[in-house]
This record gives sequence, structure tokens and C-alpha cells, in this order.
Amino acid sequence: LNKPFSKIGIIGSGNVATALAIELKAKGYNITEIYSRKKANAEILAKKIGARVIEDLAELNPQLDLVIIAVTDDAIAPIVSKIKKTIKSIVHTSGSVALSAIKKGNENYGVFYPLQTFSKKRKVDFKKIPFCIEANNAKLLRKLRLLAKSIGGEAFELSSKQRLQVHLAAVITNNFTNHLLHISQFILKRNGLPSKILYPLLCETIEKAVKIGPAKSQTGPAIRGDSSTIKKHLGLLPKAHQKDIYIAITKSIQSL
Amino acid sequence: LNKPFSKIGIIGSGNVATALAIELKAKGYNITEIYSRKKANAEILAKKIGARVIEDLAELNPQLDLVIIAVTDDAIAPIVSKIKKTIKSIVHTSGSVALSAIKKGNENYGVFYPLQTFSKKRKVDFKKIPFCIEANNAKLLRKLRLLAKSIGGEAFELSSKQRLQVHLAAVITNNFTNHLLHISQFILKRNGLPSKILYPLLCETIEKAVKIGPAKSQTGPAIRGDSSTIKKHLGLLPKAHQKDIYIAITKSIQSL
Repeated sequence: LNKPFSKIGIIGSGNVATALAIELKAKGYNITEIYSRKKANAEILAKKIGARVIEDLAELNPQLDLVIIAVTDDAIAPIVSKIKKTIKSIVHTSGSVALSAIKKGNENYGVFYPLQTFSKKRKVDFKKIPFCIEANNAKLLRKLRLLAKSIGGEAFELSSKQRLQVHLAAVITNNFTNHLLHISQFILKRNGLPSKILYPLLCETIEKAVKIGPAKSQTGPAIRGDSSTIKKHLGLLPKAHQKDIYIAITKSIQSL
Repeated sequence: LNKPFSKIGIIGSGNVATALAIELKAKGYNITEIYSRKKANAEILAKKIGARVIEDLAELNPQLDLVIIAVTDDAIAPIVSKIKKTIKSIVHTSGSVALSAIKKGNENYGVFYPLQTFSKKRKVDFKKIPFCIEANNAKLLRKLRLLAKSIGGEAFELSSKQRLQVHLAAVITNNFTNHLLHISQFILKRNGLPSKILYPLLCETIEKAVKIGPAKSQTGPAIRGDSSTIKKHLGLLPKAHQKDIYIAITKSIQSL
């Protein structure tokens, strides 16, 4: 496969920047430089992939044909305004920032959003990552599709509006589910019970929802209208925030 | 393996009664009779496992050595009072009802709670089901342990208090997570996006939480304190109940 980009710069050194840079490097891409507000993190990442750290965006190599901006949402716009115009293409990796946010940058601009959760301590299989892509022209869009395919994931061409909806669904699926698991584990732990007791149920929850759909999978006190069990449960939750979650989800299930 | 019980009656014809009866039958247990308030359902189940339907609890065979009461929580106590005293042992299958609720029944009474979610339309692998067991004497407890092992699952000896805590954690892990998946799918659907786009994220969410723990796995706008994304998301959720869930979980994540 021909590489759609020959010289890439990465801006950012967080979870997404780190995962992407390492994967691109592993697939033979030439990542020449890293910039991050957090210089120490940039150095750790640069060392891993054999790139140089730049301390100022003005030092970006003007010959780069792609700059990937993988930073927090609010930091994208200020960075875009400092990117050299000679650099061919720039993309950001955010699920919730519109394409228009980087339009004052370069001639070719786009979005390359990996629909996955990344942490520095955990390696993720890129072959399974869907990429949501968007660009201001067909040529860059095609290149981003190739970029996604070359590191393994399927590419979905989405508008900024659609991407934001996917991002919302992703936050609910990942961040919120993870927090529920956190609360479950908290309950088990404070009662001296092993986490593993819930793993078979957790696996079945996901498999069932995928296979027969969550609408047909719903069971439990909320959907049964079992108010005495609901009352008992609420009495066991020690934190007000946990009770609020219990009540909100129960009401929502009962409104179906 | 010797069977700890030779003649079993099942009371109930819902999801748990059906799954248990079919599995016990498949493992060679002799289930002689089924009773349910819903006679039509009892007949469907009885046909599946070759048992007879009884129309009144007074008709229960006095020679049964185990009656399994798998009905809604509130229905347990009224049933217990009608079970013949000659029947050796009775158990219920509820996560949230105390052992004491069936003590007015027979000499030997216990709890046999399968920690899994059941629906009639989906077959579950019993080898992976943990059973939470409890009994009023060591002999019945040992028999229930054998019963659990003989149909495949691991047995955990828990007090009624511990079982209620596990049940709460199970409701959060299964019922609440399933509802979040329901909302995610609802969002994708109304925007013309395929459900499968979120499956890799969903798988990674669970694998990550199991391997590194949910505390270290938390990412997203809530934990980052990204209030502009949170605001955008709230604007996209069409139902007040969905907004309430979003706010409650976000606040809880931010209180960590």
C-alpha cells in the first residue's frame, strides 16, 4: 500500500496522540516531530518513536504534508492559527469539534477521529478501530480513508453534526458504562466481595445487547416496577451522587 | 456425580424458572411438576421439560425433596405459606429477598440465586454462572453447593445482606449498563448511523475495565472537566430523562 502521507508531525502528547503516533510509526509512517505544551510528555513520546521534539510551533518543518492535532478540544483553535501555511494538510482528532474549527489553517483540512478509548497504560488493537473522517475536499478525504485503512480500522465518512452524535453515544457507551462498573466494584469491595463474581454477568450483558438488542434485553427491578427492591437498593448506596444515578436511570427505564 | 436432589418441583414460569428448569432437566434432574399463576406459561415450560402442570399448590407431590420458588419477590412469602411441610427443602432464587422470608415454610430452607440475566429468547451458558447460596443448615447448604456445581456454576456462600449488595451491583452492571446501551443505540438510530460503529469501543470498554480496573480506565469530557462538550451533548439529548442521566453520571464522575 502506498502511504498517503510521507512526513507527519504530531501535536499533543496525551492518550490519543500517543496511541496514534506509536501505531503510525509501527506501520512505517515517518513521524518527524512532536510538539506539546507539556514538554516532558513530548519527550517521552518522541523517544518512543524516534522523533524530535519542537518547543515552538514556529519550528514545525514547513515540508510536512500532514499535521495531526491531537489535543484537548479548547486547545485546537489556538494551535491552528499558528500552523505554517506551507504545510499541506492538517487534521484534528476530536469527536466533538466541528471541521470549521480548523478552516482558518491550511488549504486542506480535515478530521481523523478514532472511535476508541485510549490510555497510555493499555495497548489497543487498531485493526478494530473505526475512524470517523471528514475533510474540506475529496482528495484529502480519500487520503484520510487510506490512512485509516493502512493502520487497520474501517473509515466512516461523517459530517461534523453526525460525528458529534457518535461522540455523545460513545461517551455514554464508554465513559458512563465504565463509571457504572466503577460503582459496582465499589459496592462489592466495601462488602468484601470479589469483583470476579460479576464478570460472567458483565460479559452476558454485552453479548446479549449486541445479539438481541438492548430493548429486548432489559430485565430487573426498574422494568418490573419492583418498588420494594428499588427502595432497598437506594438505602444501600452510600453516596448522594450514586442515589441520583440510580433514580435517574430507573425513571428512564420506566418511561420506555 | 450423585444428584443432591431426586425429585424437584418448580414454582414459576418466568425467565429464571424457565432457564433453571431447562438446565436442570438437561443435566438429568427429575423435575416432576410446575406451578405458575400464569397457567399458559406453566404449560409451555412443562411441555419443554416433560413435567406435569399443577393448578393448585395443594396438589404438590408431598414426596418432593426440593421445591424451587422462582417468582417475583413479592410473591415468595404467600407461596411459602402454602407449601406442604412434608416437602424436604424449599429455596427461592431471588437476589434481594432475605433467607428469613421463607423460614415459615419447611424444615430446610435456603436461597439459590443465579447471578445472571435471563430472557426466554436467549440461551445462557450455565458453566459461567456464579450461584449465591444460603441455607438454614449446613446439610442443605452442602446440597445446594452440589446442585450449583452439577449444573456448572461456581457457588458463593453469601449472607442475605451480602446477597442484596451483590444484587445491587448486578442491577447496576446489567440493567443500568443495558439501558445506557439502549440510549446509545437510540442516538445512533435517529441519526441514521449503524449500531456496529460502537461495538469495538464497547468491547474495549469491558476488557479494559476488567484488566486495569474502571478507576484507571475513566476517560472523557466529565473527568477532563470539558464543560463545553458536556453542554453540546446535553443539547443533543431529546428526552429529559436522558439529560438527567447524563447530568447525574457526569457529576458522579467529577466527584471522584
